[in-house]
Amino acid sequence: MNSIQRVLIVGGVHGNEFTGIYVVKKLENHPYLIQRDNFETLTFLANPKAFAAVRRYIDQDLNRSFKKSDLQDLTRSSYEDIRAREINNLFGANGKTPVDVILDLHSSTANMGLTLMTDDRSFNLQLVTYLQSLNPSINIYLSRKSEEYFGLPSICELGCTIEVGAVPQGVLQADFFRKTEALVINALNYFEQYNRGEIPSFDKSLTVYRHIGTIDYPRNESGELQAMIHPQLQFQDYQPLAPGEPIFLTFDGETITYQGESTVYPVFINEAAYYEKGIAMCLTQKEIIHNFY
Amino acid sequence: MNSIQRVLIVGGVHGNEFTGIYVVKKLENHPYLIQRDNFETLTFLANPKAFAAVRRYIDQDLNRSFKKSDLQDLTRSSYEDIRAREINNLFGANGKTPVDVILDLHSSTANMGLTLMTDDRSFNLQLVTYLQSLNPSINIYLSRKSEEYFGLPSICELGCTIEVGAVPQGVLQADFFRKTEALVINALNYFEQYNRGEIPSFDKSLTVYRHIGTIDYPRNESGELQAMIHPQLQFQDYQPLAPGEPIFLTFDGETITYQGESTVYPVFINEAAYYEKGIAMCLTQKEIIHNFY
Repeated sequence: MNSIQRVLIVGGVHGNEFTGIYVVKKLENHPYLIQRDNFETLTFLANPKAFAAVRRYIDQDLNRSFKKSDLQDLTRSSYEDIRAREINNLFGANGKTPVDVILDLHSSTANMGLTLMTDDRSFNLQLVTYLQSLNPSINIYLSRKSEEYFGLPSICELGCTIEVGAVPQGVLQADFFRKTEALVINALNYFEQYNRGEIPSFDKSLTVYRHIGTIDYPRNESGELQAMIHPQLQFQDYQPLAPGEPIFLTFDGETITYQGESTVYPVFINEAAYYEKGIAMCLTQKEIIHNFY
Repeated sequence: MNSIQRVLIVGGVHGNEFTGIYVVKKLENHPYLIQRDNFETLTFLANPKAFAAVRRYIDQDLNRSFKKSDLQDLTRSSYEDIRAREINNLFGANGKTPVDVILDLHSSTANMGLTLMTDDRSFNLQLVTYLQSLNPSINIYLSRKSEEYFGLPSICELGCTIEVGAVPQGVLQADFFRKTEALVINALNYFEQYNRGEIPSFDKSLTVYRHIGTIDYPRNESGELQAMIHPQLQFQDYQPLAPGEPIFLTFDGETITYQGESTVYPVFINEAAYYEKGIAMCLTQKEIIHNFY
């Protein structure tokens, strides 16, 4: 890509994730914070009806509603189907004001700390490398696969999702608010340098956590939970989990151990929104990536 | 009261507070855990429709639906109005199986630790004193005033609400599950001793936190939040807050201090369910109660 013309900052794709929503509201009240000389910055609250209801979504998860065939299917009429088409018609490649980069602001009940979720396109890896250089506590989670990923950011190849936690749904915590705001400002500063051809040079390696699958809770035939995240695993996102280590605890106090063949690094452990998706945690493998400059 | 005939253990008054719901499910699957020689124990899931929807309530807060005049008003027809009448007709003083004691299981996004909420009737103070003697980390919160309190437990004078946290809505955490279960079992053991006239004797003083009021978030004319809980106050439930100490942080980074006249002890700080009620925290005063045996 030659230069960035337009950046989109999105909050409230999920209506009960307050951090991003209030960061976007603040930026809208103080537009000078996001004005830059060499590109345009837009802000957007993606699911205002879900925010008003303090729910993740009204009819279906907006962040699973951007499958190309679904966007083209005008018979789909749920609130989020309609909203996804509107968003695509605004900011997608053929939209009214197509954007080059999306920063998508989320929060999680899992202990994700400051996580940047993206894929391994060079531009994206360079962006998160820069942001991590300013805040070494940031985790990089490579989670997006083009064939399976139908989130809002899939309408645009570049950018990242900011995922902070642990914070409950429907709660605003000042520390995560400030950290999210700082990440957005730093990213905009980066785009400004990028457009000037002044990209700083870094060590050409980056530690990432690459998505490899998910694990569901133990359930009975009716789908009812039969166990909980083991207390030893709760809040241990990004920590190694070796075969044979505790993963679940049944209601009767029996420990269930991880049965995989090699050490993995779980994330999104005990995320509230994933119970209904059949996900107790996502599994990643830790990798070092080289030569992406 | 002479002897306890029937005890009710309630979970899921709020459908997204999973701890109590899964404790009740476990006890229903293992009834021997709650069978005692000298009284009957019942279990009940209070708002199954809200649990299925993973929401606090469907139409209105069930735990504010037990006002006597509302229970008698048969024209009231919200899901929770109907449910409250059903519950009162089952377990209330004139119900089918009236209960003498209620243990009501809740969770909070605030850092409530293990809290027992009750009032200052001697029976209730003696019960929580016994439970605290087994687990000194328990906090006693005297929150119920008969004129203002319309929760489910108001259909019965005796018992307590168990409030654990911080845990997000829609999340089950194993440690709070086990602690809540232990509290229920210990309470049943106490009732058994009570009926036998074998109440253990304790120091006749008890430290309690008595409810004295609430504080809302700073808001604009439209009701929109203008500030967050100050990071120094987040998670500091049951800690002293003196006049002049930080309480809120505006989105622009300005600190707002507590303007009261004396030191208070906030609880329910940043409880998700209280944003809509206009409550950023509840204020208590710390007291030592004597002579309740």
